[in-house]
Amino acid sequence: MRFDHQTLPQRVRFGTGEAATAVAAEVEERGARSVMVIAAPSESELARTIASSITVTLWWDDVAPHVPIERAERARAAARDSRIDLIVSVGGGSTTGLAKAIALTERIPIVAVPTTYAGSEATNVWGLTTESRKTTGVDDAVLPAVVVYDSRLTLSLPVALSVASGLNAVAHCVDSMWAPNSDPLNRALAEEGIRAVAEALPRIAQEPGDVAARERMQYGAYVSAVAFASAGSGLHHKICHVLGGAYDLPHAETHSAVLPQVLAYNVGASAEAEERIARALGASSAVEGIEKLYRALPTVRALREVGYQVEAIPESVALILPLVPPSNPRDVDEEALAALLRRAYDGQPVA
Amino acid sequence: MRFDHQTLPQRVRFGTGEAATAVAAEVEERGARSVMVIAAPSESELARTIASSITVTLWWDDVAPHVPIERAERARAAARDSRIDLIVSVGGGSTTGLAKAIALTERIPIVAVPTTYAGSEATNVWGLTTESRKTTGVDDAVLPAVVVYDSRLTLSLPVALSVASGLNAVAHCVDSMWAPNSDPLNRALAEEGIRAVAEALPRIAQEPGDVAARERMQYGAYVSAVAFASAGSGLHHKICHVLGGAYDLPHAETHSAVLPQVLAYNVGASAEAEERIARALGASSAVEGIEKLYRALPTVRALREVGYQVEAIPESVALILPLVPPSNPRDVDEEALAALLRRAYDGQPVA
Repeated sequence: MRFDHQTLPQRVRFGTGEAATAVAAEVEERGARSVMVIAAPSESELARTIASSITVTLWWDDVAPHVPIERAERARAAARDSRIDLIVSVGGGSTTGLAKAIALTERIPIVAVPTTYAGSEATNVWGLTTESRKTTGVDDAVLPAVVVYDSRLTLSLPVALSVASGLNAVAHCVDSMWAPNSDPLNRALAEEGIRAVAEALPRIAQEPGDVAARERMQYGAYVSAVAFASAGSGLHHKICHVLGGAYDLPHAETHSAVLPQVLAYNVGASAEAEERIARALGASSAVEGIEKLYRALPTVRALREVGYQVEAIPESVALILPLVPPSNPRDVDEEALAALLRRAYDGQPVA
Repeated sequence: MRFDHQTLPQRVRFGTGEAATAVAAEVEERGARSVMVIAAPSESELARTIASSITVTLWWDDVAPHVPIERAERARAAARDSRIDLIVSVGGGSTTGLAKAIALTERIPIVAVPTTYAGSEATNVWGLTTESRKTTGVDDAVLPAVVVYDSRLTLSLPVALSVASGLNAVAHCVDSMWAPNSDPLNRALAEEGIRAVAEALPRIAQEPGDVAARERMQYGAYVSAVAFASAGSGLHHKICHVLGGAYDLPHAETHSAVLPQVLAYNVGASAEAEERIARALGASSAVEGIEKLYRALPTVRALREVGYQVEAIPESVALILPLVPPSNPRDVDEEALAALLRRAYDGQPVA
C-alpha cells in the first residue's frame, strides 16, 4: 500500500427545501458584503427564489457551455467592479464552470447550488474555451467552499438526463478503481458512490418525483465526483474522450455503452475493484452487478446505436492506445482494445 | 437526508519505509526554513532517522501524557525563539498533542508521523491539562497539514496494545453511526474503517510482524479517526467516559467490554447502521460480525474483569443518562441502561 492523497476542504449543506436558508446562512456566517449570483436565464427565476433572503449586488446570467473565455473575462471584470466577495452559482456544470473561471483569477469563494448531477461543484478542476479549444486545469481556489444540495431543484430533471448523468457518476467511480491517482481512500468513496447511485437511479427511472431517491442520487453524484477528482481519469474515460472527440458521438450514450466493457475487461485483474464494485452493486460479481443495473434502466448499450462505425475501430485503437494509463490493472494491446470496442459496438452483455 | 458536513483538508503520504523521504519532500515543497522535531525520549532515535535528510533547527523531547500546560508553554516559547515554520512530530497521541498545542497559539503547520494507531493526527481536536483538569477544544489550525504513515514504525507495537488501539478505532466507527453529527459521508468512512481494522487486527494478533496487516491497520485507524472527528461522540463514548472517570477503569478494556453491548442495543433501531456494520464485518448481521471479531482477538469482554463493581450500576446509570445524545437511534431509559451495563459487566455475548 503506497499512496499520496490530498483531501480538499469543503462544506456540504444538504437538505431538501432548504437551499434559500442554507445560502442565507452562508452569506451571514462569512460576513459577505457583496454577493454575485450566477444562473442561466432558464434558471434565473429559481435563482431568485434561492437568493430571496440575501442582498444581491450583482445578478449574472451570461452563461454558456464550456465557459468561453470572453464571457469569463466579462464576468470577472463585473465581479471586480462590484467588489464581489462571494459568488453564489445556481445551475449545472456550465454555471458552476463560470463561477470557477471567476474564482480562478479573482480568488473569490463560491457557494455552489447544483441543479444537475454533473458533480463539477465537488472538484478543483476548471475549464475554459478559447476559439473552440478547451483548456482545463487544476487549482484549489476554484473548488467551491460550500455546496448546497436541495433535491427539490432536481425533481424536474428528465428521466433520460437523470439516467445519463447517473451512469456518468457510476463511470467516475468504476474508473476511480484503477485511475492514475487511485488510492484506498478514493476507492472507498467510489464504492459508496456506486452504491448510492445504483440504488437511486432505478427508483428515479420509475418515479421521477421520488424525493428520497433524488436525495440519494445527489449524495451519490457528490461522492462520485469527489472520488473521481481525487483518482483521475482511467481507461474508460480515455476511451470515451477519444470516441467523443474523433467521431462526435453523444457523450452520455458513449459512456453508457463503453462502461460495462471496460469494467469486464479490467475487473478480473483487480481483486479490490471486483470486491468493491460487486459489494456496491449488491451482486455476486461486478459484471453481474453492472448487468443488473443496466437492465433496470432505459439506456443505450451499443455504440452502433449512436452512429459509431465498426470500420472506425482500427483508427480508434490507434488513437486510444497511447493514452492507456500505466495504472491500468490489465495490459491493453491492439487486439484486446479492438475486441473491447467491438463488444461495445455490439452492446454485448458482460454477464 | 439532511446534514451539514465539513471535510477538512489534509494530505496523507502513505508508504512503508518511506517516512524519511516523505518528511524531506514536505520540508522541501513547503520551503520550510526552521523545523522543530518533537519526539519523546523513547522515540528520539527513531525521530533522528526520520529527520535524517532534513536540517533540524530545534529538537524537542519534553513530551508528557495529556499535554500539561506548562510544557506546552515552554515548547511554544522555544518555537517562537527559533522562528519555527514547520513542526514534525514523531510519536503517539501525546506527541501529536504537544505539536497541536503549539499550533493552537503559534499557527505553525504540522507534519505528523504517527507511531501508534491513536488517530489524533487526523483530527482538529486539541487537549491541554491544567492542574490535572483536561480542557479540549476544536480548531482547524491544529489539524496536521500532512500525515506521514510508515508501517515500519508500528511493527514493534505489542499485540495487546495493537488490539486495544484497533478496537478503539472500531468503537470510533460504530459510534459514528449514531453520533450527534453523524451523516452519510462520515458513516461511509466509518464503514470503511471497520472493514480495514477488522481485517487487519486478527492478522496482527497472529503475526505482529505482518507488514501488509500493519499497513491495513494504519489505514483503518486513519479512516476511523476521520469519521469520528466528523461525527462526534455517541452513546458508547459517553458511557466509557463516565466509567473511566468515575471508577478509574482502564481505558482500552472498558471500551472493549462496552462496545458489543452498545452495538447490540442500538443497531436494531438503525437500518443503515445494521447494514453498514454487517457488511464491513462480512457477517450476516452486525452482532454476529462483532462476535466473530472478538472471538479472533485476545481481549477483555467483561467489566467485572477490570474492577468494575456490579453495585456501581445504579450510580453509573444516573451519571450516564443525562449525557445520552439526542441523536441516539433508540430511547435510553434507566432500566435499559442498567441492563446494558449488567450485560457489559458479565461480558455477555450479543449473538
